[in-house]
Amino acid sequence: MLKPPEHQVAGHQARDGRLGPLVDGSGLFYKPLQSDDRGANELAFYTSFSSEPRIPTRIRSFFPGFHGTQLLRASDGSGLHPHLILDDLFAGLRLPSVIDLKIGSRTWFPSAPEDYFRKCLAKDRKSTSALLGFRISGLQVNDEDCKWRPSHDEVRRFNAKDVCRILRRFVSSDPASECEPNCAFASAVYGGAEGVLAQLLELKAWFEEQTLFHFYSASILVSYDNDDSEDGRRPNRARVRLVDFAHVLDGNGVIDHNFLGGLCSLIKFISNILKDPDDISNLNAL
Amino acid sequence: MLKPPEHQVAGHQARDGRLGPLVDGSGLFYKPLQSDDRGANELAFYTSFSSEPRIPTRIRSFFPGFHGTQLLRASDGSGLHPHLILDDLFAGLRLPSVIDLKIGSRTWFPSAPEDYFRKCLAKDRKSTSALLGFRISGLQVNDEDCKWRPSHDEVRRFNAKDVCRILRRFVSSDPASECEPNCAFASAVYGGAEGVLAQLLELKAWFEEQTLFHFYSASILVSYDNDDSEDGRRPNRARVRLVDFAHVLDGNGVIDHNFLGGLCSLIKFISNILKDPDDISNLNAL
Repeated sequence: MLKPPEHQVAGHQARDGRLGPLVDGSGLFYKPLQSDDRGANELAFYTSFSSEPRIPTRIRSFFPGFHGTQLLRASDGSGLHPHLILDDLFAGLRLPSVIDLKIGSRTWFPSAPEDYFRKCLAKDRKSTSALLGFRISGLQVNDEDCKWRPSHDEVRRFNAKDVCRILRRFVSSDPASECEPNCAFASAVYGGAEGVLAQLLELKAWFEEQTLFHFYSASILVSYDNDDSEDGRRPNRARVRLVDFAHVLDGNGVIDHNFLGGLCSLIKFISNILKDPDDISNLNAL
Repeated sequence: MLKPPEHQVAGHQARDGRLGPLVDGSGLFYKPLQSDDRGANELAFYTSFSSEPRIPTRIRSFFPGFHGTQLLRASDGSGLHPHLILDDLFAGLRLPSVIDLKIGSRTWFPSAPEDYFRKCLAKDRKSTSALLGFRISGLQVNDEDCKWRPSHDEVRRFNAKDVCRILRRFVSSDPASECEPNCAFASAVYGGAEGVLAQLLELKAWFEEQTLFHFYSASILVSYDNDDSEDGRRPNRARVRLVDFAHVLDGNGVIDHNFLGGLCSLIKFISNILKDPDDISNLNAL
């Protein structure tokens, strides 16, 4: 039985008769190929990436597994539609908290058609992309007692200060509170050898070297599970994944300086929170 | 006696009755304060940078020393004009080779006025800035026998392939030749503990951390001296310096991801040349 994924925080959703991704509940995520060139581009990326021998195994694990395509009944009732078959990144998680961060100070690529370029540029300047090198595209924070999930309109209006506060709120035990976030889970989620920061630094090292792909408009999905085990709530399985590859270009021997710059900016925000979870001087500077 | 500097490769030049910088021949460089806000901004930057205690000493050495301002007879004959007093970066060099690299995939800053934004954006897209994260603003290569110095118009038309080739030609013993550059001085200039790459990596480490300044439209000036000593030509004193601070903004707690991204891209180009001076596959990919 295919159904809309519970923990999707950005992008088109398969609800109310619209076209969107589906999950099978046992580990697979079906993403409908987007119209115009985007669907074909994303399929081309997954195909090329899967068979690219120069991708280190550790780096490959940051990407959803790809299992080909399949014609499926589309969620909007329009009949059969080709879907990418990908790993469901949230399979098996009970209470996942998720944030989707679109990386890069610009989402347009040098050869972009003029109307697409204008649209991206306007969004990059209006959102925090130009200023911070990334923007939040969506999030949910699952607490034992409540779920905080800002609306699409709220997310679109986030300014630099909001982004800084939300990265703290994302690892707080009172996410829905309007008080200063307590960052109770900062070290468990962001810190440690397996934490978010360590994973981002691994990605960074790869982006300093790799000249295979340029990831325009792609996102880093950060998640962890608020597992409610017997000895109390304990956030675990902090994960960093890359998603959304409709605008990946051939790197042509040049590093992806746009993605790398934004990634380094995000790393600095996360490091600041880890260094001193109570220090909000960085937030006040914005 | 003040006179126009011999080794200036980019920017307004004090020749033919125009306003431009002057040198005193004994170590000082006088840069006329630019009109509109740019002069005031550059002076403000130098003043703030000089007294900023959080700048590590090693990093400070990448910037020209600042010695206040002075009213001097302008080179365009317009009478007294305020000049910044800076270190002459080429004092004492006999045959300096110099390249001016404007860093960042965008030269406009988020709060830029609309007309300035449009002008910068057009140049960033037309030049290699958007694609490579930096562009060449000017260069001269001094050989024992000849000097190669492309015109302003030639420099403006450099594409990605040209930039890649010029970074090789810059360290070749036959810079004016149309043949494939021989990279004879690559390891002497770009390599080693005191070489260009090592200096760029030091800068990079600082840019990953520093949130004090955002350097829009600033340049990295790479130079070395083709000293003609008794035991033959031996390039020495490879130097990396930052210049042009008319558009430096307060970092407000965010790293300069735009400069950092471009710097990492430049580092990758230089590393490739060092790894294999004969390998031009990178060049062919462009």
